[in-house]
Amino acid sequence: MDQLILQRQKYGAGDHIFKEGDEGRLAYVVEEGEVEIFMIIDDHEQVLGTVGKDGIFGEMALIDNQPRMANARATKTTTIICVTRQMFDEKLNRADPFIRGLLKILADNNRDITSKWLMALH
Amino acid sequence: MDQLILQRQKYGAGDHIFKEGDEGRLAYVVEEGEVEIFMIIDDHEQVLGTVGKDGIFGEMALIDNQPRMANARATKTTTIICVTRQMFDEKLNRADPFIRGLLKILADNNRDITSKWLMALH
Repeated sequence: MDQLILQRQKYGAGDHIFKEGDEGRLAYVVEEGEVEIFMIIDDHEQVLGTVGKDGIFGEMALIDNQPRMANARATKTTTIICVTRQMFDEKLNRADPFIRGLLKILADNNRDITSKWLMALH
Repeated sequence: MDQLILQRQKYGAGDHIFKEGDEGRLAYVVEEGEVEIFMIIDDHEQVLGTVGKDGIFGEMALIDNQPRMANARATKTTTIICVTRQMFDEKLNRADPFIRGLLKILADNNRDITSKWLMALH
């Protein structure tokens, strides 16, 4: 089972890991390197944050089945570990119901507030 | 242990449950009724959402020790169940490390995007 979480991918500086609108199938943990999360707003890149060693990104797609909200790109040579939906669901099913509800609510709030923020920018 | 989660509080329509800036010690589950979550922006109330039966709110304070970001108010007669930090920490400690990391990241993102949204409104 654990081999599912240990799939690795390697990226060079500037390589895209995913793009806004892509179907989200995986979450990622940064093993080495750095990943920049950004959106394109009015033709400009707006960086939402960077994710370093041991950081998680792309997690929203696993929780709520929506397309990617943002883009992810390696800023230097980066190794990431993939977390499949199957692996995630197994972890989630073993989690306490309150913790499960909490994840769902935090994910919903993230999407909701991100929409509000994007609307406020226009 | 479970009695910690079963503390109940009852509110009437219009009663505040917490206010922005309050120290956050508890999360809540709505047992009956409805709770409105809102912020005051430029002297106006901006409703972020409503939470109905079985919904969770006030969860951010348990995760990241920051003051309340918003206000919570009952819209009608409402019974809520309190989840203490101790109870939450016990649940969290039993959770998978990936799930734990995920909760932290979602909470951080929520605060971060909420700040961006509030800045964009001004």
